[in-house]
Amino acid sequence: MPYELYYWPTIQGRGEFVRLALEEAGADYVDVARQPKGTAAMARLMGSAERPPFAPPFLKDGETIVGQTAAILLYLGARHGLAPKDPEGGLWTHQIQLTIGDFVTEAHDTHHPVGADLYYEDQKEEALRRSEEFRGSRIPKFLNWFETILTRNPEGGHLVGRALTYADLSLFQVIEGLTYAFPKATRRTLKGAPHVAALHDAVAERPRIKAYLASPRRIPFNEEGIFRRYPELDG
Amino acid sequence: MPYELYYWPTIQGRGEFVRLALEEAGADYVDVARQPKGTAAMARLMGSAERPPFAPPFLKDGETIVGQTAAILLYLGARHGLAPKDPEGGLWTHQIQLTIGDFVTEAHDTHHPVGADLYYEDQKEEALRRSEEFRGSRIPKFLNWFETILTRNPEGGHLVGRALTYADLSLFQVIEGLTYAFPKATRRTLKGAPHVAALHDAVAERPRIKAYLASPRRIPFNEEGIFRRYPELDG
Repeated sequence: MPYELYYWPTIQGRGEFVRLALEEAGADYVDVARQPKGTAAMARLMGSAERPPFAPPFLKDGETIVGQTAAILLYLGARHGLAPKDPEGGLWTHQIQLTIGDFVTEAHDTHHPVGADLYYEDQKEEALRRSEEFRGSRIPKFLNWFETILTRNPEGGHLVGRALTYADLSLFQVIEGLTYAFPKATRRTLKGAPHVAALHDAVAERPRIKAYLASPRRIPFNEEGIFRRYPELDG
Repeated sequence: MPYELYYWPTIQGRGEFVRLALEEAGADYVDVARQPKGTAAMARLMGSAERPPFAPPFLKDGETIVGQTAAILLYLGARHGLAPKDPEGGLWTHQIQLTIGDFVTEAHDTHHPVGADLYYEDQKEEALRRSEEFRGSRIPKFLNWFETILTRNPEGGHLVGRALTYADLSLFQVIEGLTYAFPKATRRTLKGAPHVAALHDAVAERPRIKAYLASPRRIPFNEEGIFRRYPELDG
């Protein structure tokens, strides 16, 4: 039975981290909300499940429902060889993913510093201030941490151990998103993080990822998602 | 060998979720940064570890270092009977914890909507707007979700299954923090979430938690932590 992924149908958003893992694994899955009547099915499940996810994305695997992006990847990583088998390596991979999740939240809040229920246009002044801080302080801090991890990994080339993990896929996606939303700031900062840039490029060349990115299954970035191109926020 | 907890010594912050789990478990631990020269030791470890945490809190158990609050609790929960043994129950507990973590980030951002590197006083206007949204929309949404989970749990009384988990302890701490920071809004919203209120009160009465809360190990809430009492933000 294929996995069922539930996420908003018109954006990459947090669902994209799950899509990338499913694609790299070659797993059989249905992107439910992109099917006819799919968003209604998503709302119904959230309304009725004994263990209802707080928000999309969530994954249904038979009777098991898993919400929260990092928890979904923890679940998939163990099943599809996208995380080390040793518990310590698995937990470290998860820890990196959780930090990526924090980074993604901050990226989102650059255009929604007052709240997700208001339009960007109604919080533009606040967004300008928050983006300045994000570009000048937070992007460098996070990318520097990833660079440090990559250089301290004795196996080299990946964030954890010698093989690809879902954390590598997620870091790829973050760099994609930052490059879309903050092209100037990201290009500048990546110059000081060559291992991060190299990992991003290597992931883009993996056959299944490359095929996915070229397919209609990859939703283009747009101004409804987490990473939005508002040139005024790129300084 | 006792666990070593590393966290900022003057605030409850995210470290408090770990402290509560360690206390309830009756685990032997040292709150390292509260010892002489402890914060220097914390900085040294972050600077030199092969797998450096992005930020405190982190836990050292022998040679293993685990960062990210939810990952630390995942680790401790399995070792101290603070999570169900079945994988699905364990993942559900973790999923609740991750959602609590999202809520905590939003609570923090009420007083720091522009960025953590600026003083509250330099983002007070933005904080007023964000808090209005937080009180009116986010506190109700999250508490309603916890209430739903509690009422849908067929075992009753706890968030997961029939026994206490670290998620129950964390929800207790969130209610403590919200009641400190937003007393009016929280009291109002809790009226519609009686199971959440009851769980909070039951956790406070657990012998080890009660003893901990009355001890000098419990740092009082203050205006350097995540939950801050700025009356103007409580509407």
